[in-house]
Amino acid sequence: MSKELIFYTTPQSRGAIVHWMLEEIGQPYSVRVVEYGTSMKAPEYLAVNPMGKVPAIQHGDVVVTEAAAICAYLADAFPEAGLAPALDNRGEYYRWLFFAAACGEPAMSDYATGWKADTADLQRRFGYGSFELTFDTLAGWLAGRSHVAGDRFSAADVYVASLLNFGLGFDLIPRKPEFEAYVAPLLERAAKKRADAIIQELMTKDAPATA
Amino acid sequence: MSKELIFYTTPQSRGAIVHWMLEEIGQPYSVRVVEYGTSMKAPEYLAVNPMGKVPAIQHGDVVVTEAAAICAYLADAFPEAGLAPALDNRGEYYRWLFFAAACGEPAMSDYATGWKADTADLQRRFGYGSFELTFDTLAGWLAGRSHVAGDRFSAADVYVASLLNFGLGFDLIPRKPEFEAYVAPLLERAAKKRADAIIQELMTKDAPATA
Ligand SMILES: N[C@@H](CCC(=O)N[C@@H](CS)C(=O)NCC(=O)O)C(=O)O
Ligand SMILES: N[C@@H](CCC(=O)N[C@@H](CS)C(=O)NCC(=O)O)C(=O)O
Repeated sequence: MSKELIFYTTPQSRGAIVHWMLEEIGQPYSVRVVEYGTSMKAPEYLAVNPMGKVPAIQHGDVVVTEAAAICAYLADAFPEAGLAPALDNRGEYYRWLFFAAACGEPAMSDYATGWKADTADLQRRFGYGSFELTFDTLAGWLAGRSHVAGDRFSAADVYVASLLNFGLGFDLIPRKPEFEAYVAPLLERAAKKRADAIIQELMTKDAPATA
Repeated sequence: MSKELIFYTTPQSRGAIVHWMLEEIGQPYSVRVVEYGTSMKAPEYLAVNPMGKVPAIQHGDVVVTEAAAICAYLADAFPEAGLAPALDNRGEYYRWLFFAAACGEPAMSDYATGWKADTADLQRRFGYGSFELTFDTLAGWLAGRSHVAGDRFSAADVYVASLLNFGLGFDLIPRKPEFEAYVAPLLERAAKKRADAIIQELMTKDAPATA
């Protein structure tokens, strides 16, 4: 008996990252839509994720939050999908997954607010240095590459491509040719298209909160 | 023949996280000290980490940057050390490793500058929500626990305990009893003490830049 896999999300959110990842995994899962401000902050859902944020998954009795952690978790929990490198070959995989989550994400969020780590001292202490340095570094890595880790698609690509796609879509990252060249083919993956179609459906049927 | 393991660091830095991790692993490594502003921004080191930041490691021909990624990488590359859970049991492990790196770190950095995500809209969009929410959530998880993932020490504890220890030491996180109870016994680990002793030595001998 396989464990039940429950996915908490809301259509326009970082949940889209996990939706794509779940479609790559190809195992059954059930979607529970929670709504901003209401069911997302209700006791039932806070028991799942005390941050009151999506995405989260529950797999058997384990809860995983943080979109990047969920990608890494699912890749390991479902090895048949081949979405994580072998244990002795995870340097690039972890490097860019953490870089995207812990440098790319906050650099983009701060940029969105107009706040800037603009002194040499701040940039030395800030994990992402500066917005420009973060995205120059990522572009440097992606130049000429189809995948962040080795030459195979992995969970790290789901996360990194999702972040860049969001950033490009909302003008929250520099529009670098390296990003566009890397992201475009990944968006054509069947799993990504399936996830987008399901999200579209959730939006149009204006799903009631079920969590 | 095992691959050479090179560790780039400077004494007072996030390098201390990786130093602890390396001592937990117990395999030989060589330390290359790079200095803020000079060798850390020189072409030789930028070829290792284009962010011009420490820590970084080189293991054979793979470079890993990002302290949390390095912890995860080393745990998997040296499975004999038993510092990562089995592949089918990594939910808590990834959840809190990413939470610490992608929520705890930026929440603490923003707090240090006095900047605050102080509107409901910002908190909804920011990955860490708010400084208070992030550290309340982490304290809630740690209450009554000795380890972040299951009941065994792992690479996630090296990272989470290091972050909290730094935050407590510099008054950059709320001084919660859950944090002090969790961190204190971990600081007593032999590997942590060895790492601290080596760092102390590097500082007193005022090591010249070698990278
Ligand atoms: N660090 C989290 C961030 C999650 C997050 O901020 N989600 C937003 C939607 S994109 C949310 O649920 N906001 C609702 C709220 O904070 O009330 C992750 O990477 O998964
Ligand atoms: N996101 C990186 C941050 C690394 C970082 O910011 N390191 C600081 C030292 S604690 C640094 O090397 N600063 C030097 C500089 O930026 O010039 C990580 O978690 O490893």
